[in-house]
Amino acid sequence: MSSNIKALLFDVFGTVVDWRSSLIANFTKWGKAKGIDGDWTALVDGWRQAYMPSMDEVRKHPERGFVILDTLQRQSIEPLCAKLGIKGLKPEDYDYLTRGWHSLDPWPDSVSGLTRMKKKFIIGPLSNGNVALLTNMAKAAGLPWDLVLSAEIFGHYKPDAETYLGSAKILGLAPEQVMLVAAHNNDLAAAQSYGLKTAFVARPTEYGPHQVRDFEPDGKWDFVGRDFNDLAGQLGC
Amino acid sequence: MSSNIKALLFDVFGTVVDWRSSLIANFTKWGKAKGIDGDWTALVDGWRQAYMPSMDEVRKHPERGFVILDTLQRQSIEPLCAKLGIKGLKPEDYDYLTRGWHSLDPWPDSVSGLTRMKKKFIIGPLSNGNVALLTNMAKAAGLPWDLVLSAEIFGHYKPDAETYLGSAKILGLAPEQVMLVAAHNNDLAAAQSYGLKTAFVARPTEYGPHQVRDFEPDGKWDFVGRDFNDLAGQLGC
Repeated sequence: MSSNIKALLFDVFGTVVDWRSSLIANFTKWGKAKGIDGDWTALVDGWRQAYMPSMDEVRKHPERGFVILDTLQRQSIEPLCAKLGIKGLKPEDYDYLTRGWHSLDPWPDSVSGLTRMKKKFIIGPLSNGNVALLTNMAKAAGLPWDLVLSAEIFGHYKPDAETYLGSAKILGLAPEQVMLVAAHNNDLAAAQSYGLKTAFVARPTEYGPHQVRDFEPDGKWDFVGRDFNDLAGQLGC
Repeated sequence: MSSNIKALLFDVFGTVVDWRSSLIANFTKWGKAKGIDGDWTALVDGWRQAYMPSMDEVRKHPERGFVILDTLQRQSIEPLCAKLGIKGLKPEDYDYLTRGWHSLDPWPDSVSGLTRMKKKFIIGPLSNGNVALLTNMAKAAGLPWDLVLSAEIFGHYKPDAETYLGSAKILGLAPEQVMLVAAHNNDLAAAQSYGLKTAFVARPTEYGPHQVRDFEPDGKWDFVGRDFNDLAGQLGC
């Protein structure tokens, strides 16, 4: 079943890295060192909530041009801090917080599983994160990508067709030779609708106590793995 | 001097891989197995001569849209075979020859030098080869890129400004934080004119007996290395 698959592309935030725990730990430590008081958990959860609407604005208004995720995150953090009563932040502090998305810890199985899958397949992210973010994250976390594919390269955010079909095209592959690996059923549904293969790996603690979905696969995905090593085994790696 | 440099980008054909020897060996063996007679050395040399004019056509006519290198190579190989009297090739044979550019042997110092430089810098190709070509080549040759940057991503061939400045921008870096490593003085001159740092490594056998230039650095480059390991040492890797 996997014999025709040549490339595995990975959703990143939540699928490969634990953005929530990483950012909360980073900002809590940083706030303490800077003497800045704040509910950093509320900040991280609120920031993530602003993520989809800010990308949807870009998707709805292509005439305004594509805006990378770093810029969207930087735009949403200032009003969010104001709303949460986090005071005394300078522009460079907002830059620091935004840059936090460049260094997120992988799930415990991510690096070992990716390293196994890399032996048999081309592996890369297919993420709404921009290229610099994904590259810096890979360096910090040791993610052994063969190449970095990003919404930025296609000028479109997932779930636009251009990201899934553009990934296959830029790799010189047919859509069915590319498999998306994700912890999010809606991402897989979009990929499948454009002819890509799909693999689901649950990350039930991604949103902490706020997780309301993606505990289980809810589509007919080609593979369902307990984690990346389990998936690697199923793929014969 | 290298303290501010964050990313090293590499010209690929000639700088990282020995395209000429690789292709001659590949096609000679293949022709023998297929029973197809031909002067494969003349074919490879002629093909490389068609390379710059075919890209220049794309550069001169942006209104026609960007055409990837695989397509240009596929277009130039048929008339070249006809000219050289290489007969009996089917479409899939031309495809095979074109695909030859996806698997080229690295110079003996390339992988070890890149592996050292990767520890301290973001490393990637910045090549006129398309993304699939560069990705497949890296898998076959073990080139440990962090990401793949290609003319295809920028919709422009080197030496257009968009490739050098686009590389810095997509990495979230200033031009002077990026260094181009190349065996070709003209590539370095273009990169330097846009504010990138530059490193020259001579590959005096790249063109075999036809090599007429690039035996020595002919500009004020930031670094000149005997090979990639020598350059790695100079960069403190």
